[in-house]
Formats: sequence, C-alpha cells, structure tokens
Amino acid sequence: MSDYIELRARTLDANQTLARSGLVILTWGNASQADRAAGVFAIKPSGVPYDRLSADDIVVCSIQTGEKIWGRLNPSSDTPTHAKLYQAWPQINGACHAHPVYSTAWSQASRALPALGTTHADTFDGDVPVTRRLTVQEVEGDYEAATGTAIVEAFKGRDPMGTPAALVRQHGPFAWGKDAAEAVEHMIILEQSARIAHKQYALTDALSESPRKLDEPLRRKHYERKHGANATYGQRL
Amino acid sequence: MSDYIELRARTLDANQTLARSGLVILTWGNASQADRAAGVFAIKPSGVPYDRLSADDIVVCSIQTGEKIWGRLNPSSDTPTHAKLYQAWPQINGACHAHPVYSTAWSQASRALPALGTTHADTFDGDVPVTRRLTVQEVEGDYEAATGTAIVEAFKGRDPMGTPAALVRQHGPFAWGKDAAEAVEHMIILEQSARIAHKQYALTDALSESPRKLDEPLRRKHYERKHGANATYGQRL
Amino acid sequence: MSDYIELRARTLDANQTLARSGLVILTWGNASQADRAAGVFAIKPSGVPYDRLSADDIVVCSIQTGEKIWGRLNPSSDTPTHAKLYQAWPQINGACHAHPVYSTAWSQASRALPALGTTHADTFDGDVPVTRRLTVQEVEGDYEAATGTAIVEAFKGRDPMGTPAALVRQHGPFAWGKDAAEAVEHMIILEQSARIAHKQYALTDALSESPRKLDEPLRRKHYERKHGANATYGQRL
Amino acid sequence: MSDYIELRARTLDANQTLARSGLVILTWGNASQADRAAGVFAIKPSGVPYDRLSADDIVVCSIQTGEKIWGRLNPSSDTPTHAKLYQAWPQINGACHAHPVYSTAWSQASRALPALGTTHADTFDGDVPVTRRLTVQEVEGDYEAATGTAIVEAFKGRDPMGTPAALVRQHGPFAWGKDAAEAVEHMIILEQSARIAHKQYALTDALSESPRKLDEPLRRKHYERKHGANATYGQRL
Repeated sequence: MSDYIELRARTLDANQTLARSGLVILTWGNASQADRAAGVFAIKPSGVPYDRLSADDIVVCSIQTGEKIWGRLNPSSDTPTHAKLYQAWPQINGACHAHPVYSTAWSQASRALPALGTTHADTFDGDVPVTRRLTVQEVEGDYEAATGTAIVEAFKGRDPMGTPAALVRQHGPFAWGKDAAEAVEHMIILEQSARIAHKQYALTDALSESPRKLDEPLRRKHYERKHGANATYGQRL
Repeated sequence: MSDYIELRARTLDANQTLARSGLVILTWGNASQADRAAGVFAIKPSGVPYDRLSADDIVVCSIQTGEKIWGRLNPSSDTPTHAKLYQAWPQINGACHAHPVYSTAWSQASRALPALGTTHADTFDGDVPVTRRLTVQEVEGDYEAATGTAIVEAFKGRDPMGTPAALVRQHGPFAWGKDAAEAVEHMIILEQSARIAHKQYALTDALSESPRKLDEPLRRKHYERKHGANATYGQRL
Repeated sequence: MSDYIELRARTLDANQTLARSGLVILTWGNASQADRAAGVFAIKPSGVPYDRLSADDIVVCSIQTGEKIWGRLNPSSDTPTHAKLYQAWPQINGACHAHPVYSTAWSQASRALPALGTTHADTFDGDVPVTRRLTVQEVEGDYEAATGTAIVEAFKGRDPMGTPAALVRQHGPFAWGKDAAEAVEHMIILEQSARIAHKQYALTDALSESPRKLDEPLRRKHYERKHGANATYGQRL
Repeated sequence: MSDYIELRARTLDANQTLARSGLVILTWGNASQADRAAGVFAIKPSGVPYDRLSADDIVVCSIQTGEKIWGRLNPSSDTPTHAKLYQAWPQINGACHAHPVYSTAWSQASRALPALGTTHADTFDGDVPVTRRLTVQEVEGDYEAATGTAIVEAFKGRDPMGTPAALVRQHGPFAWGKDAAEAVEHMIILEQSARIAHKQYALTDALSESPRKLDEPLRRKHYERKHGANATYGQRL
C-alpha cells in the first residue's frame, strides 16, 4: 500500500481545485477519493487552510468503519458522511462537500433544485433532491453518519450517478462522481445551476409568473447526449 | 488552404477571450470563425478545457454540411447550430455560444431581453429575441440544427447584424458578428445587458412598479450614434 | 503648455484606476481632468481599450467649446457632457462616466438613489438625483450636451460638491470631484452605495416592508464628520 | 514596551487580511488588536489606503480612554467604538469594522441576521443582533463611543464570544474575537452568512414562503461541535 501516496496526491489535487473554484471561503469544503481495492478513502484534514495543505496532511480512512487508518491529523468532521456514501454506492469513488452561496441557500430553504434549463439537464437527470429532516435522536447521536444515511435515502429508486449531488436540508450540498476530481466538478456545476435557477426565480417573480420546468423531451435530450448510450459530447479517445 | 493556420489561430484567440471573460465555467462555451472563400468555419473541439486548448485542437467544418473536414478531435456539439447561422446569414463570419448566468436565466424564463437602457441600445437594435419552442420531432431528431433554424426564424424580417444575439428558449444565448472576436464581444455585452436588466426588474418589483422600456428616440439615438450612417463613436482610422 | 504632459498623465492614471476598479467592461467608461488656468480638460479617446491606452492617446479639449485642441484621436463621445459640467461648475476639476451594473440599474429605473445608510451618507449629502427626461429635440439634436445640461439642472439649489454624482435617466451615472482621481473614487462609492441599496430593497421587499431612509441626525453626522468644518476623518497632513 | 513592535505587526497583518478578503473597497474597514497587559490596543490609521499601509502607520491607543498614546497618524474614526468593546468585554482581544455589501444591507434594514442554516450556526450561537437606535444626543455627542455602548447593550445577558458580531443599525457590522485575526475571520463569516441568508430570503419570497429558522437541535449541534466542551472540529494540537 506504501502509505497511499498516489491516493493522497489525487485527493490533495481535488481539494486544491475546489479551493481555486471560488466556491469556498476559509476551510469550508472537503473532497475525498476512494481506493476500493484497499477498502479506504483519503480526505482533507479538519480545519486546515488550503494554502498550507500538503499531501502529508491528507488522512486515510476505512470505507467500512469511517475510522482513520493513516495520517497524523484529524480528518474532516464530515468524514462519516463520506463513508456512508462510499458504503451505500460502490459505483462512486469520489465525494465533495462545501457551502457555496446559492446551493446552500436552496438547502437552507429545504427545496430540491428543479431542472429548469438545459444547463442543469446536461449533468443532472432530473431535480437535485433535498434530504429529509433528521430526527432529534439522529442530530444528537451519530449526526454526520445520519446525514449520509439521509442522502442515500433520497436516492431510493434513483441512480446516484445519474444525478450526482444532493442538498442537505438546512445545511448545504454534497456531490460525488467516479473520482474526487469529478465530484468537485459536479459541485461546481451544481452551484452554477443553483445560481442560474435563483436568478430565474427572482426574474419570474418580478414578472408575476412561476418558473416553468424544462420541457421533458428537451431535458431528456440534453442528459442523453452527454450521458446516454449514444452520447456524442466530448472526445471518445 | 495550408491547413487553415490563420483561421484556426483566430478561432483559438476568440475562444481564449471568451474563457478569460468570466462568462464560462469548465468547458461551457465555444466560438467559431468562418472563411467564406473556403466555404468553412473553424470551431472549438467538444469538451476540451480552455487551458489545454491549442490551435492544433481547433476543428474545421464545412459551412454547407456542418461536417468536419479538418482536425483530429470532435467539434463542439453545437456545431450544427453554428452551421445553420452561417448558411442563413452570409453577412456574419463569427458565432459564439455560452451559458453565462443572467442571459441563461432570461433564456430559461423564455423571455426576450427588453431594451431598458442605453447600455443595451448601444449594441442591440431593439429587444434580443427568444426563440420558439422546438417540436418533439425537432428535439428528438437533428436537435442542434433545429436550434439554429429556430434562431434564424426569430430574425424573420429583422437584420441579424442589427441585433447580433438571441436567447434560445430554456437553453441559453448565442451571439454572432463580423468575426469570432466580435461574436465574443457581443456575448459579453449581452450578458452585461441581461445582468443590468435583471437588477432593474428586481428593483422595480421591490418598488411595486413595472420596468419601463427605454424611450424610443433615446433608443434610436444610441443605436445610431454607434452603428448608423453617421456614427460618431470610436475611431474611424 | 508643452503639450499638456502632466494633465494627460493624470487623466491616463484616473482612467486606468477606473479600468482596474471592476466597474467597467470593454471600453465602457471615461474620466477627464480639467486645467482651469489653460481653459482645457483632457479625456479618454473614444472606443480605445484600456490595456492599449497610453498618455499619447489622451485628447485635450476646450472647456468653453468642448472642441478638441490637442491629440490625434477622437475624444470620448461623452465629451460634450463633461464640457457642460466644467462650464457650469468651476469648483470641479474631474469628471467620470461609466455603466456599472447597480447604478445603471437605478438609472434605467429612473429613480434617485436614496440615502439609506451611513455608507452612502459618508460621501453624498442626501439622495443622488436622477435627471429629467430629455425632450425629443434634445435627444435628436446636441444630445450629449443636453445630457450635461440635465445633470446641471438636477443640482439647481444644491452644491454639486456636496453630492458629487448623478444618475442620468435610462442611461447611467456620472460622478465628479476636485480632480479626475476623486471623480473615479466617487464613481466607485456610488456603485457600492447603489449595490447595497439594491440588496436592501430586495431584502425589505421579501420582508414585506419598505426601506426606511437613514435617520436625519445620523445622516448629517456622517456627512459632517468627513466633510464638515470640523471634519475628523482621515489625516489632516 | 519597545514601541509595541509585535502588536503593530499583528494589527497590520489582520488589516491586510481584511483588505485581501474582498470585503472592503477603498479604505472602508479597520481591525484592532489589544495588549491587555499593556492596557492598549493597536488600530489602523484613518483614511490610509491598504496598499500603502506599513507597521509604522499603525496607531496605539489606551483601552481605558481610547486616546492615542503612540503613532504619528490619526487613528481610525471608529476608535472609540473599539475602545468601548475592549472596556466592556475583557475576553476579547481583537475587533473589526467594515462595510461589506450584504451585512451592511441587513444593518441598513435594521434587522438582526437570523440563524437560518448550519453555516451560520457553525460560528454564531443564535441570531446576530442589530443595535438599538441611538438618541439624537448620542449621535450629536460622543457618537462613536455611543455606537460601542449600543453594541455592548445588545449583548446584555449574552456571551459576546458566543456570537462574536453585531449589526449596527443603519450603519454596518462589527466583529470581534480572541485576537485581530479571528475578528477579521468572524467578519468574513458574517458576510458570507448574510449573503446566503439574503439569497434565501429572495428565493423563499419568490416561492411565496417565509424563511424558516434552523431547527434548534441542529443549530445547537453545529455550534457545539465546533465550540462546545466536547468540540470535535479542527486539530487539537
């Protein structure tokens, strides 16, 4: 395993991309990368500024227990949430949490992010769900794990890779993907979609209209041309 | 034709200006430049990050068919839309598409961008139109070409060089011009006009008023002093 | 006068500060500096990008006639507006025009910017006025000079140095000051005040309240401690 | 005391962090650092641009009287407010004032900033209070000291270190902490919380809903896991 050198390097890289994205202030965000063969994921340490972060600071945890198995620092306080996602969904190998302005505002408003335009539909196969309210027992008990459980529940009957993000009620967004880099990219897209949707709501409100959902054929077309069996977007190298 | 070296260099340059403008995240935008004598246009490849983009990556396509005739990468998925614009309007030699926040919000709201101030009127000879809804057949068929057709239809009886932009319904903006650089500049102006108009709507809504259109003599004056027969703006070198 | 070397250098510097302020896109702004002894003012040329602007490009015009008397380029199309301000108000020696988002939105809404907080009151001695509607004759005639006349009229009975800015109806803001640098600073403050006021209107609207004007004793206190006879702000060096 | 060299260096550093934060334009902000053993605090001079600010410009004042005891420049005009905070609250050793857009808009609207989400609750133990209206006598008399008194009054029966910020009515925010660096960090968090809350209000207004306060168990959980007796956030090095 040789101290997970490559795993920690990839995790550092994704966290630095998140920091450069303009979505985080101070230390408010974290990204993780899983290594399924080793049964672990690497994650940002808690409360360490991005400009002082090195690969040596990255912490490695067990997917099964969420416990730290390598590193001298404490892992992100959100580590049990990441662990729950990796446990429930074997198809994901990266996860990301942050508090960007618009997706956090939607989360605080406890509203799913509706699919209003093709920009949203290019990445998300339908609305981005908002999680249920946690019980008092969940909040006062193993809170961060319960947050992960609530995210997983929100995707019951839905493919988490089809819509790779969720809004945690009164809290903020999580995103995931095939690796840490894609999880961060999905967070960036979520925030842009949330921002455009917010502007559209303000505009239609001023027009005394209600926002209209994206027409279903157009929504499906945009998702399928990027992610369907016959996807044409990008380079198939 | 010597591999369209100058054409690709100009196209690269316009795409980099677009990337630096702050209007695009990730790979969400593309600009193209036509060479009428050669019957071709050059365009950004699909899904390639701007910071890795080189002139060798630029793809050259036929104006008449939209098919690739030079380059190793796939062209932008929006290529058939660009082709339709070049086919319909011989006076344009540049086109641009992006998903900037405010003009995308207006597009998603399916509303034309009204001429509310002189900032808008300096560039656009009236409202920037929104395209019609596509039919299910169009969406499920040759969708990107149909998008171009809908833009062209929105200018029936109007000079596309007078108002060099359109909002595609539920999607986002396209802009065009005498070359790729001007198309990008028109996209920047469209987004700024959409942003100011959005702020005005929010403000007048808070004031329990409706936004008032720019007075017609003032609208005409601003358009004419920059674009009319006796234009006085800029340097006539 | 040796070609107004110092005057053009100061004018260039103020225009570059404006460009760096984030308030302008493309070439959308201009600042001028007067030399009362020489009866002239220097101003940015029309349509020249800021990053290519040099002191040699700056144009010098007569205060009395607004006509160019030095320089090879055309002066800003707003030159007759600047001239009117210098003609009417001997106490100002700098002026600035731009299209920043929030003060342009207030201008387009044809509303004076109300004094809602101490941030506004630190610089502006009361509301920033909006100009009257121009007549069709004024718009179709010497339009830019008429714009200046309308600004001057908005200050009838008011000290233009007490409130060094105005919103031109359906157009955008002008600001002025003791020199070009101060005019640009007043433009920056106007935009920040307009932005905060806009956010307050949106907030109080969401609260089903109306924005309340700043209490008069507090308004006067803030203006006086910076600009009154016994001002205490800053360094009296 | 050897001219307070370290104290001034720390104060300069906090003011430069504030300038780099994007929360201030021009000279609109100041941070101070106390030295309780020496009975003094160091603060930014009035009206000096951040890019010209050096440690030699920092002014040192008496906590007890607010009077300058070291330095050649005038201290910030807000110095008596800082002094009042240090006098009333021995547990704080840093304070900060600025005019950032969103917390200033809430201040101008004379509304406390409600705890709407976990982002707010991570730092502030409840709503961030708004101060009472000052009397005309207070405004016309020792105004800046009265501002400090009103802040202290707003925390009657509340721990100022639990909620280390206040909104001054019709004016703007103050924040504080264990040192100047933490006071600036609290200002940055306050502005981000105010921005998210503003977006949530606009969104819920467009949805014809009222914003709902953060559930109390969740609010308490987030505050306690960062600041409680058994806090788990960050590194306990």
